[in-house]
Amino acid sequence: MTVDHQPIIGFIGTGVMGQGMVSNLLQNGYQVNVYNRTRSKAEPLIEKGAIWRDTPQEVAENVDVTITIVGYPDDVEAVYLEDGILDAAAEGSIVIDMTTSSPQLAESIAEAARKKGIAALDAPVSGGDVGARNGKLSIMVGGDAEVYEACLPIFQAMGENIVHQGPAGAGQHTKMANQIKIASNMIGVCEAMAYAEKAGLDPDTVLQSISSGAAGSWSLSNLAPKMINNDYAPGFYVKHFIKDMTIALNSAEKMGLLTPGLSLAKRLYEELAESGEGDSGTQALYKKYKEQMHTV
Amino acid sequence: MTVDHQPIIGFIGTGVMGQGMVSNLLQNGYQVNVYNRTRSKAEPLIEKGAIWRDTPQEVAENVDVTITIVGYPDDVEAVYLEDGILDAAAEGSIVIDMTTSSPQLAESIAEAARKKGIAALDAPVSGGDVGARNGKLSIMVGGDAEVYEACLPIFQAMGENIVHQGPAGAGQHTKMANQIKIASNMIGVCEAMAYAEKAGLDPDTVLQSISSGAAGSWSLSNLAPKMINNDYAPGFYVKHFIKDMTIALNSAEKMGLLTPGLSLAKRLYEELAESGEGDSGTQALYKKYKEQMHTV
Repeated sequence: MTVDHQPIIGFIGTGVMGQGMVSNLLQNGYQVNVYNRTRSKAEPLIEKGAIWRDTPQEVAENVDVTITIVGYPDDVEAVYLEDGILDAAAEGSIVIDMTTSSPQLAESIAEAARKKGIAALDAPVSGGDVGARNGKLSIMVGGDAEVYEACLPIFQAMGENIVHQGPAGAGQHTKMANQIKIASNMIGVCEAMAYAEKAGLDPDTVLQSISSGAAGSWSLSNLAPKMINNDYAPGFYVKHFIKDMTIALNSAEKMGLLTPGLSLAKRLYEELAESGEGDSGTQALYKKYKEQMHTV
Repeated sequence: MTVDHQPIIGFIGTGVMGQGMVSNLLQNGYQVNVYNRTRSKAEPLIEKGAIWRDTPQEVAENVDVTITIVGYPDDVEAVYLEDGILDAAAEGSIVIDMTTSSPQLAESIAEAARKKGIAALDAPVSGGDVGARNGKLSIMVGGDAEVYEACLPIFQAMGENIVHQGPAGAGQHTKMANQIKIASNMIGVCEAMAYAEKAGLDPDTVLQSISSGAAGSWSLSNLAPKMINNDYAPGFYVKHFIKDMTIALNSAEKMGLLTPGLSLAKRLYEELAESGEGDSGTQALYKKYKEQMHTV
């Protein structure tokens, strides 16, 4: 990217995450061109000054940097390789996929982009819709270092903990490590709280003892209280977590790495989704343990 | 306990934990009578003013409050019910077991004590030898509320986060919940770091991205760096963690609670111990994943 103006940004996917991210880009003075499958979801951003484009290609051909955050790896593949972002984007432009998606797909996209003189980064995030809204996302970036450096101001408009993790795919691999860590830990949180309740303890009092020591974790502090209060409203959807664990497990298998904890978590969450909890928050895993609560 | 003097304390078990705990009791002005199976380990405490007694009974018959922290539930059972602490302790005195032990055994001891007019607390700790030395243990207490209140100054000499969790056994149940949480989380830490290394990422850089967000935990921040540096020195021994997980799993099974994550962790750690790692720190679980690192 050699531009003498502030780069013009394209943003494809203005869902829960995209809403906050585009708002922060606009607030930082960027011109942002947006596209979303459901146009109505982009309206609040258009009111704030974003420019609507009718197709992903139309976004890509009008901007210096095309950012995508869509649902599933299939959507990523479609928008880059079928809907033709890579056909429409100008030589010398940059594409950044911020969807949590397959590391191997990120490598393929980067390779396809390279052949057309386009630079590609994979830059998935963590921090949820709250982090997106507040510009406090953690952003894990894969791709060429100089492209990462060029895009750093853009990332800084959306996030706080921004780390270049390595070549194409490294951002996605890092996000997978993040989700793998969460997967087994969620089982630990559920089993600890279920044990406490089953033993007749007061779970809030148990948390006083165990939250701040060697058992402490973000999930224990933030999700266990929701479990106790039967609050299963989604911060992060069960169905999306299953998507991530599926990508992670496939990727681990391709690398020849056995991850029995991840396999167990994926199985438990799939059973949970089959029982109709796909749209609940990930803390709903506790329901699988609650079922055992009144039987001996 | 109705005493008009500062209670005289007995302390049975002056191992790594007991050393720090007795030192802090002495520093807080308590007279402490000590017994340990291996007398030499008590010498540093005798030099600091502790009074040596030749048997557990001799400790118990000379004090107002007998504290025990020994190895395994079998040791607890032996010292209370066979070596006869409960025979030797005076009516109106208090016994406190601070070993991580079986909740059901704690209930039995409390019941046996009650019949002799002795009050019993179960008060396992977390925080390790460092916490014991610095007087910063987390202490989880089960037993009668008024006995807990009477012993609070004693606990405060040894710990910081001191919580009364309920009736006899509740302290042990809380410690089990703590260990159950750690068990699955350790799998998550290992699998996340193994995935990162297998994917060719720099694990320290990955930790920069994932330590402070939703994947964050005490174990990730404190043990993952040791895994990366092949530092398997024991903070907490594999063999002791297996002991705790065995108690927890037995207890969960007695209550009719399925804990597949705990079962998996126990199995993995048992395999690890069978390969000769019982005296390593719990972070040595990473070795089971490292084995896969150079094969595809």
